[in-house]
Amino acid sequence: MTLEIPEVVINRLPVYARALASLAMEGETVVSSQALGEKLDVTPAQIRKDLSYFGRFGKQGRGYNVQSLLTKLREILGLDRKWRVCLVGVGRLGQAIAEYGGFEPQGFQIVAVFDSSPEMAGKTIGNCTVRDSVELESYLRQNAIDIGVVAVPARAAQQVVDQLVNGGIKSILNYAPMMPHVPRDVAIRHIDPVLAMQSMTFYIKQRDPLPAK
Amino acid sequence: MTLEIPEVVINRLPVYARALASLAMEGETVVSSQALGEKLDVTPAQIRKDLSYFGRFGKQGRGYNVQSLLTKLREILGLDRKWRVCLVGVGRLGQAIAEYGGFEPQGFQIVAVFDSSPEMAGKTIGNCTVRDSVELESYLRQNAIDIGVVAVPARAAQQVVDQLVNGGIKSILNYAPMMPHVPRDVAIRHIDPVLAMQSMTFYIKQRDPLPAK
Repeated sequence: MTLEIPEVVINRLPVYARALASLAMEGETVVSSQALGEKLDVTPAQIRKDLSYFGRFGKQGRGYNVQSLLTKLREILGLDRKWRVCLVGVGRLGQAIAEYGGFEPQGFQIVAVFDSSPEMAGKTIGNCTVRDSVELESYLRQNAIDIGVVAVPARAAQQVVDQLVNGGIKSILNYAPMMPHVPRDVAIRHIDPVLAMQSMTFYIKQRDPLPAK
Repeated sequence: MTLEIPEVVINRLPVYARALASLAMEGETVVSSQALGEKLDVTPAQIRKDLSYFGRFGKQGRGYNVQSLLTKLREILGLDRKWRVCLVGVGRLGQAIAEYGGFEPQGFQIVAVFDSSPEMAGKTIGNCTVRDSVELESYLRQNAIDIGVVAVPARAAQQVVDQLVNGGIKSILNYAPMMPHVPRDVAIRHIDPVLAMQSMTFYIKQRDPLPAK
């Protein structure tokens, strides 16, 4: 049943969970879909509909219990667990990812890093010693890794993704500026600031049709 | 008319443009919606529908002319222009953004950087001298800036977004791990790798319901 939940719904759940965590920190115990919607610029109807996929939450006219909804969402999303992450590519971007402090507190621990460049092998990045990318597949077969992060140049990304998939990885976070192919049973998300900017320039152009200086 | 085009359609256009640019580089002159769809894991019907918002492209059964469709998409999205970007926050993440080589070739030039920390003021990051964030609004009123990039901690992000909006910015790329409020006429996109990872753990959990070691 849960497999039929639209991906867009799943993608919104972490946003709800984060907002609820923030409300809990502020000492709020109850929140209406109206108030949660205003906080997130989402309609209350959408919140109610999204949550309805997972059962009945809250009582009509009384709002949601912040802590119990948060606990439920964390359970649904697996946010109450630790997840083991491997990072491929430790150029400038990969190093910034390895040293980014935001993953670990959320349960995402980078436990292995790989790079194809001989001069990186053996260096310490974050808490990991850099391994040669030729070992990637065999490493993945021997170690339980949940998520692969791709931080290699576009031209190398498909090959790295293929290695991750062959090694059994089912969840990939891709920072390379291209869209690698993955089998249907592999989830992939793209972090692509250029595409994000390009999707906004359309609106600037609508507003201001004259070329910028 | 163009204002009624769904945002999800606009968001896909840069992906199509990038795929067409890559085909053009490979010397392809014609592409079918089928072939383009396979490249992007999108249905041909969706590509045809998305493009139909902007007129008629391609001839039935003959596919799209790669170069002319690319030119048209670049024009629609404003990718044939230079865009002036200001960056707020030059901690580790902001510095990585300032030094990221992927924006400039796509027409996004970081022309000003701001930080609230006194020890950053006057330093050179990328090609810019760091300015004090207290000057942000007045700078924006006096200089033509198209896009604001927010790379400050979550607790400071709403205030920075408000300054950008008050300074007249209509397009914001937000790297802070929270969702700042913006007026209806301001476009905002979030770059949030933690949310992206959290949206995938749901699927891992479905597959492997036992807690990870």
